[in-house]
Amino acid sequence: MVQRTVFFISDQTGVTAETFGQSLLTQFDGASFNRITIPFVSNRKKAEEAVRKINLTAEAEGQRPLVFSTLVHDELRDMLHEANGLYLDFFDAFLAPLERELGVKSSHTTGRAHGMSANVDAYNFRIEATNYALNNDDGAHIKDYGKADVILVGVSRSGKTPTCLYMAMQYGVFAANYPLTEEEFESGKLPSALDSHRKKLYGLTINSQRLQQIRKERLDGGRYATPQQVSFELREAEKLFKKYGVPTIDTTEMSVEEIASTILEHTGLERRFRP
Amino acid sequence: MVQRTVFFISDQTGVTAETFGQSLLTQFDGASFNRITIPFVSNRKKAEEAVRKINLTAEAEGQRPLVFSTLVHDELRDMLHEANGLYLDFFDAFLAPLERELGVKSSHTTGRAHGMSANVDAYNFRIEATNYALNNDDGAHIKDYGKADVILVGVSRSGKTPTCLYMAMQYGVFAANYPLTEEEFESGKLPSALDSHRKKLYGLTINSQRLQQIRKERLDGGRYATPQQVSFELREAEKLFKKYGVPTIDTTEMSVEEIASTILEHTGLERRFRP
Repeated sequence: MVQRTVFFISDQTGVTAETFGQSLLTQFDGASFNRITIPFVSNRKKAEEAVRKINLTAEAEGQRPLVFSTLVHDELRDMLHEANGLYLDFFDAFLAPLERELGVKSSHTTGRAHGMSANVDAYNFRIEATNYALNNDDGAHIKDYGKADVILVGVSRSGKTPTCLYMAMQYGVFAANYPLTEEEFESGKLPSALDSHRKKLYGLTINSQRLQQIRKERLDGGRYATPQQVSFELREAEKLFKKYGVPTIDTTEMSVEEIASTILEHTGLERRFRP
Repeated sequence: MVQRTVFFISDQTGVTAETFGQSLLTQFDGASFNRITIPFVSNRKKAEEAVRKINLTAEAEGQRPLVFSTLVHDELRDMLHEANGLYLDFFDAFLAPLERELGVKSSHTTGRAHGMSANVDAYNFRIEATNYALNNDDGAHIKDYGKADVILVGVSRSGKTPTCLYMAMQYGVFAANYPLTEEEFESGKLPSALDSHRKKLYGLTINSQRLQQIRKERLDGGRYATPQQVSFELREAEKLFKKYGVPTIDTTEMSVEEIASTILEHTGLERRFRP
């Protein structure tokens, strides 16, 4: 079996280096990777330290590690090139063709990708959207639906809250959510507070086995996690979605990223922020 | 001035393609980019549609767009290669050297990077950590500090909540937060509930102009955003951090990503999740 230590080297947070490396590593089924992130490699001393760690690992394991780097400065990049690893550098590979295409030199500047200075306005949108998601979680402040870009509707633990938060933090989208409970199931109606916001509604569905499993992990016992209760709630929610023509997405097999980007794609919502 | 339309093409959510492209684009100061994400390009029909959009843009603008792609399937990638754009493909560039190094073929499989199926346990950690951050926001449930990996302490609007949420969603870290208010400033003490968790405390500081600006954007008028009040709170918070030996980070110029990864780096906290 393939086993290898992997370094993510960055002069900034490491988020980009990790995303970059991670998406490639997932293409190697059955391989086992030991992942180490070294962020803030922004000077010679830190670069030397990183090289030392890579070389020690190569020696200890008898094979060279993989090194995914997003170092911007040529000098530091050259130092890492000399380490005993397979050095894959993001900027090495793509900056040159981009410079040729755009006819300008890149700034070779550290720390832009996830820095705040680049876009204070966008950053404020993100914070505003996050606060909005927190304040409009689970129907707490019904009055604020007017400001929502989208309102997620679904039974408890169908994924509403993390999806709203992710949409806020990743896209700056104002996402509220409304939980379907006994009240809606008994009346067979959505609350009147949602009447004027019907076009913003998006329903989350989930398969009953998975929902039962999630609920069991949260609370021990009780009616909340019984197969009967879970199936009942999902059936009633389904009826409401049909009755009100609410588009739905099945979250059973999806990550929060997938749910959020699918909703964005389907609704055509504009993002206000790019991390 | 350089102006260009940029496409992010993905057979999945587009998160990786966007991160990939974005970190390169930020290296071109002063250039202006119109960004379009096309996610879920998972079959020939959708690839044709993407090619059409790229070609129409090239024609309309008289210059070819930049195309950042993370398409995994060779067939779809070949189709996009034919579009009238500068095609920069993540997998094109890096899969071959990785395959050579590891001595195995990659699986060329769609949708691993942000898919849930790959790691259900990690996914559950993420949800648990997110719920934890929500339930332990602003000192609401003091009893749960035992479960915290880290407890962020700071005055109102210093960045505690978004940082906790980000640490949960990006790293699966259990981050609580405790707001410093009149109570602490008057007594000059941290609450006794934090006594047994001193080693987990991490202080957020921020410069007073920036804090004033943030608070002004949130609430109109009032003592809360006056220079006097803001300076007073920050000074008192600083005293508390010194008194209790709480490490601090100045969030004034930092994005949430930067704050979170710096804290992770300084504390040596292990991440439980990699997106």
